[in-house]
Amino acid sequence: MNGAHALIRTLVANGVDTCFTNPGTSEMHFVAALDDVPEMRPVLALFEGVATGAADGYGRMAGKPAATLLHLGPGLGNGLANLHNARRARTPIVNIVGDHATYHQALDAPLASDIVGVARNVSRWVRESKGPETVGADAVEAIKEARRGGVATLILPADVSWLEGADPRAEVTLDVVVASFDDAVDLAAKALRSGEPAALLVGGRALRERGLTAASRIAQATGAKLLCETFPARLERGAGLPEVERLAYLAEFAVAQMQDVHQLVLVDAKEPVSFFAYPNFPSRLAPESCEIHDLVPDGALAEAALEALADAVGAPADGALPAPAARPDRPTGALNPQSMAQAIGALLPEGAIVSDEAQTGGLFVAGATAGAPRHDWLTLTGGAIGQGMPVATGAAVACPDRKVLNLEADGSAMYTLQSLWTQAREHLDVTTIIFDNRAYAILNLELSRVGARTDGNAADQFDLSRPPLDFVALARGMGVDATRVETAEDFVGALERSLNEPGPYLIDAIIPNRL
Amino acid sequence: MNGAHALIRTLVANGVDTCFTNPGTSEMHFVAALDDVPEMRPVLALFEGVATGAADGYGRMAGKPAATLLHLGPGLGNGLANLHNARRARTPIVNIVGDHATYHQALDAPLASDIVGVARNVSRWVRESKGPETVGADAVEAIKEARRGGVATLILPADVSWLEGADPRAEVTLDVVVASFDDAVDLAAKALRSGEPAALLVGGRALRERGLTAASRIAQATGAKLLCETFPARLERGAGLPEVERLAYLAEFAVAQMQDVHQLVLVDAKEPVSFFAYPNFPSRLAPESCEIHDLVPDGALAEAALEALADAVGAPADGALPAPAARPDRPTGALNPQSMAQAIGALLPEGAIVSDEAQTGGLFVAGATAGAPRHDWLTLTGGAIGQGMPVATGAAVACPDRKVLNLEADGSAMYTLQSLWTQAREHLDVTTIIFDNRAYAILNLELSRVGARTDGNAADQFDLSRPPLDFVALARGMGVDATRVETAEDFVGALERSLNEPGPYLIDAIIPNRL
Repeated sequence: MNGAHALIRTLVANGVDTCFTNPGTSEMHFVAALDDVPEMRPVLALFEGVATGAADGYGRMAGKPAATLLHLGPGLGNGLANLHNARRARTPIVNIVGDHATYHQALDAPLASDIVGVARNVSRWVRESKGPETVGADAVEAIKEARRGGVATLILPADVSWLEGADPRAEVTLDVVVASFDDAVDLAAKALRSGEPAALLVGGRALRERGLTAASRIAQATGAKLLCETFPARLERGAGLPEVERLAYLAEFAVAQMQDVHQLVLVDAKEPVSFFAYPNFPSRLAPESCEIHDLVPDGALAEAALEALADAVGAPADGALPAPAARPDRPTGALNPQSMAQAIGALLPEGAIVSDEAQTGGLFVAGATAGAPRHDWLTLTGGAIGQGMPVATGAAVACPDRKVLNLEADGSAMYTLQSLWTQAREHLDVTTIIFDNRAYAILNLELSRVGARTDGNAADQFDLSRPPLDFVALARGMGVDATRVETAEDFVGALERSLNEPGPYLIDAIIPNRL
Repeated sequence: MNGAHALIRTLVANGVDTCFTNPGTSEMHFVAALDDVPEMRPVLALFEGVATGAADGYGRMAGKPAATLLHLGPGLGNGLANLHNARRARTPIVNIVGDHATYHQALDAPLASDIVGVARNVSRWVRESKGPETVGADAVEAIKEARRGGVATLILPADVSWLEGADPRAEVTLDVVVASFDDAVDLAAKALRSGEPAALLVGGRALRERGLTAASRIAQATGAKLLCETFPARLERGAGLPEVERLAYLAEFAVAQMQDVHQLVLVDAKEPVSFFAYPNFPSRLAPESCEIHDLVPDGALAEAALEALADAVGAPADGALPAPAARPDRPTGALNPQSMAQAIGALLPEGAIVSDEAQTGGLFVAGATAGAPRHDWLTLTGGAIGQGMPVATGAAVACPDRKVLNLEADGSAMYTLQSLWTQAREHLDVTTIIFDNRAYAILNLELSRVGARTDGNAADQFDLSRPPLDFVALARGMGVDATRVETAEDFVGALERSLNEPGPYLIDAIIPNRL
């Protein structure tokens, strides 16, 4: 058996049965081996950033890694921004990067480059497979590392793929994380019962029902504020689940959220820092005097530790506060971020997966959907825009029986728009809503902070109106049907139709260029 | 003066007056400073790969660097593939990457990453500016390094931009390269006069009129074969200029071109190796017994060394063999790679700049244009597809009085299609021809070599017909008018109209999916 066969068989033996691909000649034997292992589903992307972002969306929803298949250093480069986001989301991904044959690498052929150096930037683990006899074991290590939460990059030289002498490895088991959090729970309980204003900042794996329920019990019992990290990888929310307040993206607002907190308990979350630095503004968001406690040494323990903490503070088992069911009315009149949010809140279907990269245009959607039927919310974990459409694509591959709603800013959409073609090719059930304000509106806001003119070269860098992008044409050009709407009524109608029909669809919602 | 102002003023004082941008918050003070330095022309791209590829096209044609403006590590990642191509082209680029404020970097905010590690992959020089007092000197070094031929990456922390205390630097001069090539010329002359079959392999800066003329004199006087590297950064060609035979991309053909060569003289070119490795096929293309001579230690000396070599072998001053003027007739009938090549040969205007990323579809174009009026040919130097459209964009910015013809494969087009929007926004004179065979045809060829089925999952990875891409819709969606053609006559008509009208235009040419 050649190396490529052994690799693919090892992957599928361990549940890694989906591969987001954009291969080239150096990956040809891997591609050819797909014919012999039908258990592996290859999903072709027209651009590597789509493949890596889709692997992120898939991993967040499937709870297990997908593989990628990228073409040497430049392919990895094209996929790097969304691997950065996946790193921040701690999404399991087996990131396979083809390379030249081992003996060809020293010749510095045109496509040669330092793949390891680039891969380190986004990977918790990087290994170049040295021969067909090791590739099965290499794949096992990659799967294990990915399952620990992050990108494991396996570099696959062409000759390792094509040479015989490889063996697939059977199922591997991941070591169970064993670590004591008793002391941390005691300290956190003491902090929360100190009488000082306190907050829980919850992130990562604590944002599913079990963790949220425990966190809500704690907040209700102690009066602590319940906060969620700014950009959660996957937040379960909606009617019946405890609601958490997300820490704001804009530093001024986040500082206001934190200003009274004297005791801060982190649960699978990092100490909050501002997204960007600003002149004469603190980078750390918690007050200087705030005491910070880290509840768990490993995110895998977050839910158990939260339950132990809830018990330690004497919270009743049924003490969580679920969000009540509530939907806004369908909006009428002008189309703007408020009426769009209202429409989405009115129509969001049960079990929806929301991939949110709407930026300023989506500011009101979270509020309008807090009482909608239960759903998952996936966000821009690493701040590298161009994530929303690929993540929606991968989530739809992972969960074919759920509707995916992609809330997408116009500027962000243009980084990885090729996602639509994969959605059409795979008949994925994704409705994309373009919040089309024809500007990098969030950057206009940042520009106004530094006091620049609104009519010069500077402001022109954030103007997307010249020429306007026609997202209906762009979507149709990639095989996805689409419509443009300019009133709340038309938006409601288009959204409702799309939610009731399977398959990909895009709604280009024209809204004013202002917050 | 703040750091951003000083940086921009230093750039424009040294002729770096064009900046291809896709900025974000960490670059906001650079953006704001654009209002105060109108000599700097910012050209906005919707995706960083367009910005870096445009800087490559600009540098190749302008003969001086453009700057880029990228947003932290993910922005650099998105631009990495085309910086890889620029590295292989040895194009001068001042690659400016914004970063978090120096004191913010240790906090590991969501967008933080190892920018230096990634930049090294593509840069001949990398420096992080440490403060406003050094940024002027840093810019001078970056410009010097870029002018030596390659990507110089200057990392610009946000606080270095916004802090006062910076000074711009005035004009800098680049050291003249002084190195002796006398011994190398003697050895090469001896090799060429040895009576053994010989070849000159010419690349880099030797592919302009002066170098080509000297190379042709040598070939005519000695009988040496005159070869050109496979993917030249910029090749001057057409009627009146000596023609060179490009080394083939497919290794079998390249080996055939080299098989009789016993003496090989490299002129600003590397020893030829196959683009990819294949089982049981040599990676080195020259026969094992071939003696290889390197004519120049530095590309800047290539033309002078070639002239010295021409004199040393006794070639008459007027001994070059210019290509005769010749154009094919306008084709009629079926549209296919042959008739498309014929049409382009019949119509290519004088002074055109051809950005060639047509892959298999463009196989016949070079032959059909060898006797066309004089023009420049820009190719895929690093093999990272998605270069053709950005390079065309940047070339058009550099040479507003020349027509740019972008020969573009459908698959390659989809990596950096956002180029069209920049072409529309800047009213650039680019005609894009999509060689639309609805396949990664070159990969189908490679797949057939490894013996895979033509109807399985493997072959499906290279099929772009499901759904077909509608490039007319895609172009119009970005503000560029377009038409679809399916006959030779319609192609001739559309091409002729487009060549006679200024501004961007796209022709979607539907051709059969076979070589």
